[in-house]
Amino acid sequence: MTGHRAALRRFSLNQATTQHWPLPDAVAGCVAAGVPGIGLWREPVAEYGVERAAKLVRDAGLTVTTLCRGGFFTADDWRTENLRAIDEAAALGAPVLVLVSGGLPAGSKDIDGARHRVADAIAELAPYAEAAGVRLAVEPLHPMFSADRCVIATLGQALDIAERFDPGIVGVVVDAYHVWWDDTVYAQIARAGEWIASFQVCDWTTPLPAGVLLGRALPGDGCIELRRLREAVDAAGYTGPIEVEVFNADVWARPGEQVLAAAIDGYLREVA
Amino acid sequence: MTGHRAALRRFSLNQATTQHWPLPDAVAGCVAAGVPGIGLWREPVAEYGVERAAKLVRDAGLTVTTLCRGGFFTADDWRTENLRAIDEAAALGAPVLVLVSGGLPAGSKDIDGARHRVADAIAELAPYAEAAGVRLAVEPLHPMFSADRCVIATLGQALDIAERFDPGIVGVVVDAYHVWWDDTVYAQIARAGEWIASFQVCDWTTPLPAGVLLGRALPGDGCIELRRLREAVDAAGYTGPIEVEVFNADVWARPGEQVLAAAIDGYLREVA
Repeated sequence: MTGHRAALRRFSLNQATTQHWPLPDAVAGCVAAGVPGIGLWREPVAEYGVERAAKLVRDAGLTVTTLCRGGFFTADDWRTENLRAIDEAAALGAPVLVLVSGGLPAGSKDIDGARHRVADAIAELAPYAEAAGVRLAVEPLHPMFSADRCVIATLGQALDIAERFDPGIVGVVVDAYHVWWDDTVYAQIARAGEWIASFQVCDWTTPLPAGVLLGRALPGDGCIELRRLREAVDAAGYTGPIEVEVFNADVWARPGEQVLAAAIDGYLREVA
Repeated sequence: MTGHRAALRRFSLNQATTQHWPLPDAVAGCVAAGVPGIGLWREPVAEYGVERAAKLVRDAGLTVTTLCRGGFFTADDWRTENLRAIDEAAALGAPVLVLVSGGLPAGSKDIDGARHRVADAIAELAPYAEAAGVRLAVEPLHPMFSADRCVIATLGQALDIAERFDPGIVGVVVDAYHVWWDDTVYAQIARAGEWIASFQVCDWTTPLPAGVLLGRALPGDGCIELRRLREAVDAAGYTGPIEVEVFNADVWARPGEQVLAAAIDGYLREVA
């Protein structure tokens, strides 16, 4: 293993970072760059074909680190959709299915009710996921998404759910973008321990764009203490992949190879 | 006292809600609407003249509920500015000076350091505020403002600072918009007790606009359980004013009288 490859041992490209890079190109790009892992998304995988995507990635020697994403438990078809997502993760060899809980149902103000529903839904899915060999990972999203995307707003809340299960069956996602502001985050990461199923990085910049979804920056371009967070998840016992996941219209407008190179550069400088 | 006036007993118009309403018009509008209190902002007050504003409000029989705002402790001139803000609050008869801590210094990632600096600065200001008869109120802002406006992101954090002081000298602001998403908010409100120096309401809607500052809605137009929060601050022992504080470009574009009427309507329906 060369020094570069060794340094990238835990690096994984989350597919959302290179939103417009066709899957075969992204896979070839990762191989060319010495990247060992890729985090996949259900929509582009479905478009390419699940079995075909599984073969493509496997033949390239890449590890699938996560599948994004299940969840959205307030949708009417949440059960069907999540069982399907678990099947897809299994078919892809993705060890982890990321769950984003969904926000409040339209017109509802009952955030406690929505939160209870998330916990109930995960309890219902857990046996199926266990049988499929797929670990469910509850992802808290930044509180600016509480109303419309994810009522699970802190790592503490995600752990309150995940700890009801064996950590091999239900874990949590630590995404630096969503948790960096929390004054209890280091205590919660220590608490999380073997429940940490995924660690994702990108960076926080302001001003946030309209809709706030696409405001993320490449690692190193913002104000998050990424290395400190990485060291904290390591100290908690996490030895798994580190996904770079950036949602940003300007980043998406650039060629995939350039974005991957910038992600690797930021990762080596600020995270590894 | 008529029924309407009785129902508005705790209502206060935060001046920011009617951003473009000249102070004399806002004061006259409050009097005409039977509103007993007004929350003032330093900038428009300075423009009108502090002593002149104090006389205007006093002569109208209005109570000044808060002065917004001090804080921004990472600015070079924070000490001078905050001592001046305390003097202004005293001159206006404002019992409470709202403190928004400020975000990270430019280029800094040291959020712990910034948070320590806030606590130190408040300790430095407290004796001066006490002597002036002005209560300092630490306001946690929503975590989407942690980087650029306020490193104090939760009520728990604000209380960690305020509890070092007599509650008559340093308290906290409970602003529904900033705290509603927090699964610990009701526990923290109960903990806050007599440290609650101000209660502010508006509502949460999505999508958030670019920059996210002006995304607030009038009470009732969003998804926050405003009455539940009001009942919680009441149960914690708070009997003071309830300020409607809305930052929203569309709201600001409407005539002040209309906005005040809508704020009163939302307050009576959703808060009182």
